[in-house]
Amino acid sequence: MTAKDTLEAAITAQGDVVRKLKSAATKDKAKINEEVQKLLALKEQLKQLSVDDAEQQPAAAEPAAAPGNRNLALKTAKGTRDYGPEAMALRLRVLEQVVGVFRKHGAETIDTPVFELKEVLTGKYGEDSKLIYDLKDQGGEILALRYDLTVPFARYVGMGNVFNIKRYQIAKVYRRDNPQITRGRYREFYQCDFDIAGTYDPMLPDAECVKVVCEILSTVGVGPYVVKLNHRKLLDGMFEACGVPADQFRTACSSVDKLDKTPWEEVRREMVEEKGLPAETVDRIGVYVTLHGGPDLVDRLAADEQLQRIPSALEGLADMRLLLQYCAIFQVADRVSFDLSLARGLDYYTGVIYEAVLLGTDDGAGGEVTVGSVAGGGRYDNLVGMFNPKRKQVPCVGVSIGVERLFSILEARTAGKQRTNETEVYVASAHKGLHLKRLEILNQLWDAGVKAEHSYKLNPKLLAQLQHCEEYQIPYAIILGDGELTRGVVKLREIATRKEEEVALDTFVEELRRRLTVSATVQT
Amino acid sequence: MTAKDTLEAAITAQGDVVRKLKSAATKDKAKINEEVQKLLALKEQLKQLSVDDAEQQPAAAEPAAAPGNRNLALKTAKGTRDYGPEAMALRLRVLEQVVGVFRKHGAETIDTPVFELKEVLTGKYGEDSKLIYDLKDQGGEILALRYDLTVPFARYVGMGNVFNIKRYQIAKVYRRDNPQITRGRYREFYQCDFDIAGTYDPMLPDAECVKVVCEILSTVGVGPYVVKLNHRKLLDGMFEACGVPADQFRTACSSVDKLDKTPWEEVRREMVEEKGLPAETVDRIGVYVTLHGGPDLVDRLAADEQLQRIPSALEGLADMRLLLQYCAIFQVADRVSFDLSLARGLDYYTGVIYEAVLLGTDDGAGGEVTVGSVAGGGRYDNLVGMFNPKRKQVPCVGVSIGVERLFSILEARTAGKQRTNETEVYVASAHKGLHLKRLEILNQLWDAGVKAEHSYKLNPKLLAQLQHCEEYQIPYAIILGDGELTRGVVKLREIATRKEEEVALDTFVEELRRRLTVSATVQT
Repeated sequence: MTAKDTLEAAITAQGDVVRKLKSAATKDKAKINEEVQKLLALKEQLKQLSVDDAEQQPAAAEPAAAPGNRNLALKTAKGTRDYGPEAMALRLRVLEQVVGVFRKHGAETIDTPVFELKEVLTGKYGEDSKLIYDLKDQGGEILALRYDLTVPFARYVGMGNVFNIKRYQIAKVYRRDNPQITRGRYREFYQCDFDIAGTYDPMLPDAECVKVVCEILSTVGVGPYVVKLNHRKLLDGMFEACGVPADQFRTACSSVDKLDKTPWEEVRREMVEEKGLPAETVDRIGVYVTLHGGPDLVDRLAADEQLQRIPSALEGLADMRLLLQYCAIFQVADRVSFDLSLARGLDYYTGVIYEAVLLGTDDGAGGEVTVGSVAGGGRYDNLVGMFNPKRKQVPCVGVSIGVERLFSILEARTAGKQRTNETEVYVASAHKGLHLKRLEILNQLWDAGVKAEHSYKLNPKLLAQLQHCEEYQIPYAIILGDGELTRGVVKLREIATRKEEEVALDTFVEELRRRLTVSATVQT
Repeated sequence: MTAKDTLEAAITAQGDVVRKLKSAATKDKAKINEEVQKLLALKEQLKQLSVDDAEQQPAAAEPAAAPGNRNLALKTAKGTRDYGPEAMALRLRVLEQVVGVFRKHGAETIDTPVFELKEVLTGKYGEDSKLIYDLKDQGGEILALRYDLTVPFARYVGMGNVFNIKRYQIAKVYRRDNPQITRGRYREFYQCDFDIAGTYDPMLPDAECVKVVCEILSTVGVGPYVVKLNHRKLLDGMFEACGVPADQFRTACSSVDKLDKTPWEEVRREMVEEKGLPAETVDRIGVYVTLHGGPDLVDRLAADEQLQRIPSALEGLADMRLLLQYCAIFQVADRVSFDLSLARGLDYYTGVIYEAVLLGTDDGAGGEVTVGSVAGGGRYDNLVGMFNPKRKQVPCVGVSIGVERLFSILEARTAGKQRTNETEVYVASAHKGLHLKRLEILNQLWDAGVKAEHSYKLNPKLLAQLQHCEEYQIPYAIILGDGELTRGVVKLREIATRKEEEVALDTFVEELRRRLTVSATVQT
């Protein structure tokens, strides 16, 4: 299937979703809006397919914008989208869970600018450097949008002479990648990073990163997963043992890194034909990269005669043995897999590397297949020194949580409308002429810390006000009417049950608070 | 004083702060780090002064970067800075308070991309359009970083056919302004916006925006303030009454807008000499713009013979009368001031305009002087239509909270180190050889939801571990020792009091939780 076919199929499917929502008896406007946005994004992506071809030739000029605003393009930039209230409610919920785990492990947070001097980013991302968004030279510095949070973090640590910090950072990063909106991949997306910088004993911070990933994936609740573990020194030792020249370790790494998506035969061909490695060498690599297991595999490799001769392989194995021991104490041994096919694309890793993948069961044959990476990271001991005035190194290890994937998975699973605001009570008028009284009641509620709102119309219809409460799942309404007010009371209505009772004007705030506390307790 | 003098004075003062911190008996590393960062930012700004001159001539080329990384500039982009753990702890605390108020008023949240198609931003910011950061044309669309959150919000509402929404958005915006780091003004900064879009009855949403501003400023606690109110229709009516031609209303507005920083004589000169308005007209304006008050001023202006003839002035006055009435019910009458000198710079306002300023008492004579704007906004009824496929308008009103100023004020006031992480207990070893036991204890704590950490060294010194607890204000430590462990107990130490007691290994988690709950209750 071509990209065009995939998109057209996705558009048809999304169109169905929208039509179904629109024809439903109870219209959920926020949900419809969200789904329409997705549909528009897909259509935009289809339209961009031809533009993309043009982009391949840098000389091709953008069609000139029509003068004036009459033909203003009504869209967000390619590969980006808006997030409406419902999408945001889910995002905030998930981010809160992720941050909760980071904080449980004692992390602080920092913030760095969205753009960096271009030279800070240069040479850190290998082939992917072409995906960096540059800012226009407007007569000042040469700037570019951040590509990840790791390089800015290393700059922060190096530049600020920080020698130890455990920090998390949640922020958006930018990649001029080919957006795959059908798979939830955009050009602007969140990264959630947790890193430990400092000179410590082997594998103690590294093991905690694994624990953090496991806690997050279990808390967020995205089903079964496995955290693949490997070690750059072991990989290098393995390449050396198989006969790869040292200056081709990194390029061999980037071929092996494709094994999660590409069959061995294809990767083998690339290494032999494109990268010019001897077929015999590549076949020896092929034997190693099929191996995965636990502490038993460490023992087996430690006994491997070829690897025994290579110091870096032995160092890597010693680390792996310790890491797996600590993982067992952290009770995540059943969640991790020492996997020699894991390589990670980035150049800066120097030790342990991680990648968490979700296990799906949709291969149609009852077996488990992996459905994609949701976290990744590793140790990078030589990055900070580049940014330190005296070239001092600070060893670092960290993980980045692929929250965008988590959002997509949870969004697809969420049934029914979720709350998008936190209003506790709606102040309604039973008839005309009550807006001043409404404002007075609202003011009492706000000053008492109760989340409250009302219609911004002078004389709204009662039915419309109650429908608003149902649409936004506001638990209570206070209904004002002249009859009640002259008797010094208001009606308190529970929206879900439609039960109404009268409460005194001088105690309604306390009454309401009591009920809100009770229902909050019941829910926990 | 020139900019150079101001900067040099600020650098001297900041240098003193850093030296004082460094020579203090108890070194607060995080605080020192923060202050050093500020010092570096100031020095950078001084260095940029000459670069700025070069920037004035677009032809002047940036000095070429040295090849390789050896001379990598160790800095963030001009006008930006990193925020370390202590700055972030304060920021998160303030943002949480601001969001709390937005949510109390029933607001949802949305998110839009950091960059927009350039044409979306074009023509919205008047003279300030030159401050927009453009992205480089990399063969795709022409993009620019957002300049505020209002135009992206209007695009979201218009493009998505949203007809009513009450939303808040907290995000960074970008302006290639002359950074004034001494005054806490950067090129990248947060905006916190609250807007109500929808066709409603006059002044009901507008008054709620005033209430929101007052609640936020009171909650955050930045001292006395006043919310100045005015109305674009009244301003236009006043200009008409004074004889300003209709096509010069906006330019007259932008002159009047300077009155908060510039004396009338200066503004008068600009209007007469630069903008060519008749001196008589300008003098008549001068009489009006000194006026400020409450409902009494509405009455006085409604009786003004010149204004009575101008329909838009009467419309504006009717709105102001209603707004002040609603403000009285919301009990913020003593916080607002109807002020005819308030104009606001942006082109898109069509009705009520707001600006909150803090009142200082540092004029040396015991009188109150204003120390700057901390919130601003207004009604913009004609912006959304530009972004709607059918040009449908959705009336909007909103406010933007100047949180960066609030951060600066609160930062200056904060005495002593604030907590930067939330760790509840530190697991310490009393002697060598206990790291595996530490991991086991930590795992129990994490799985029970307790925020816990330890040293990443195998055999850390006990004193170093306890000092870490004091530095980070961690309330408890669990101290492991062979003697205690053989008796099935651990030591639980309260860091502040240094009181220690033994708790059983099989109940220490519950024991600790109990204490944490008690101290949390005491604090609230």
